[in-house]
Amino acid sequence: MDGLLLQGFFRSSAAWRVRIALNLKGIGYAQVARHLRRGEQRAPDFMAKNPQGLVPALEVPGQGVLTQSLAIIEWLEETQPGAPLLPADPWARARVRSLAQIIACDIHPIQNLRVLAYLKRELGQEGPTVDAFARHWITGGLAALEQRLATEAETGLFCHGDAPGLADLCLVPQLGNARRFGTELSPYPTILRIEAACLALPAFQQSAPDRQPDAE
Amino acid sequence: MDGLLLQGFFRSSAAWRVRIALNLKGIGYAQVARHLRRGEQRAPDFMAKNPQGLVPALEVPGQGVLTQSLAIIEWLEETQPGAPLLPADPWARARVRSLAQIIACDIHPIQNLRVLAYLKRELGQEGPTVDAFARHWITGGLAALEQRLATEAETGLFCHGDAPGLADLCLVPQLGNARRFGTELSPYPTILRIEAACLALPAFQQSAPDRQPDAE
Repeated sequence: MDGLLLQGFFRSSAAWRVRIALNLKGIGYAQVARHLRRGEQRAPDFMAKNPQGLVPALEVPGQGVLTQSLAIIEWLEETQPGAPLLPADPWARARVRSLAQIIACDIHPIQNLRVLAYLKRELGQEGPTVDAFARHWITGGLAALEQRLATEAETGLFCHGDAPGLADLCLVPQLGNARRFGTELSPYPTILRIEAACLALPAFQQSAPDRQPDAE
Repeated sequence: MDGLLLQGFFRSSAAWRVRIALNLKGIGYAQVARHLRRGEQRAPDFMAKNPQGLVPALEVPGQGVLTQSLAIIEWLEETQPGAPLLPADPWARARVRSLAQIIACDIHPIQNLRVLAYLKRELGQEGPTVDAFARHWITGGLAALEQRLATEAETGLFCHGDAPGLADLCLVPQLGNARRFGTELSPYPTILRIEAACLALPAFQQSAPDRQPDAE
């Protein structure tokens, strides 16, 4: 597949997930940065592509624009060759999706930049209180994730077996956010072991925020 | 499939989604209620099934426990006969998933009971401020959803074409939440038209909170 254009932001963890997925599948893509702190995701030309005004959006030549990171990744999985991001067995697929959704539904949206900005601007909360709010949801989610990964037999070198997939590509960006908010990560040894395995792979290394063209 | 047991709560919109999916597919199930305001989702016997301490969880005889509503529904779609909840074409599937995820990732988690309880208890916010916080994320998400549904050619009687599916079963519970927080819904005529089409169907009627055994 040629000509993919990813509208993203180097530090957006949802865009980061899509970068990892594309890299794991070995699919080339160009990037356009929408600087979230400058509000570039609300520019009219971008709102016309995604009325949510959120990154990522993936432009597919001749077809249109895909939005929502997990929907984009499931589409890549269903249409593109390369490394599978989900196992073949339905029960295993449900496990991987549920691990990914702990992050994508129950951690990341609550500690997202726009929510923290609301707490500051609309509710008048100070920086340390806002960071503690973010850490609360991060640690609650990571604790559940650690317990599952540490006790479920399907966990391998990665979240599911010995190849990286959908849960891993959600986990690594979430840990980036966790560190930004000063989260203590030592209670999550299985998660840290899996992160290290991911970060040994070029697909993850090349997706890192500080390797993107718009990195600050 | 016999013997399914849904651990839920009548008012949980994530459990409500799963009830609709099961009903649309014509699959029978028993329910156990975990009263969220009484903290029953944190009872040790439930935490052993889902370390997140969140509903829904679906117990499948002989296989185990599934968690995360969207992962449960994708599993039902992949393994159970009955009405399809996703279209067959990958591009169309991505559209439906992205509509569902506007709700499941970018509205519902932020206005969820546990987040609002944190604003009250930890940040000392008053009821009207907390309700306004909930409405802020609901109206932002619904506005994007309305724009897409009103302008995209794939919208039919339902969110995608003329049969109900994954996006619709996320939409109806979210509108239930919207009304609880006093959200003005008249700016969303397409959404309200689709909701009315859903509520004309027995599968949606029988899934409503006030029809559940634990309804108050």
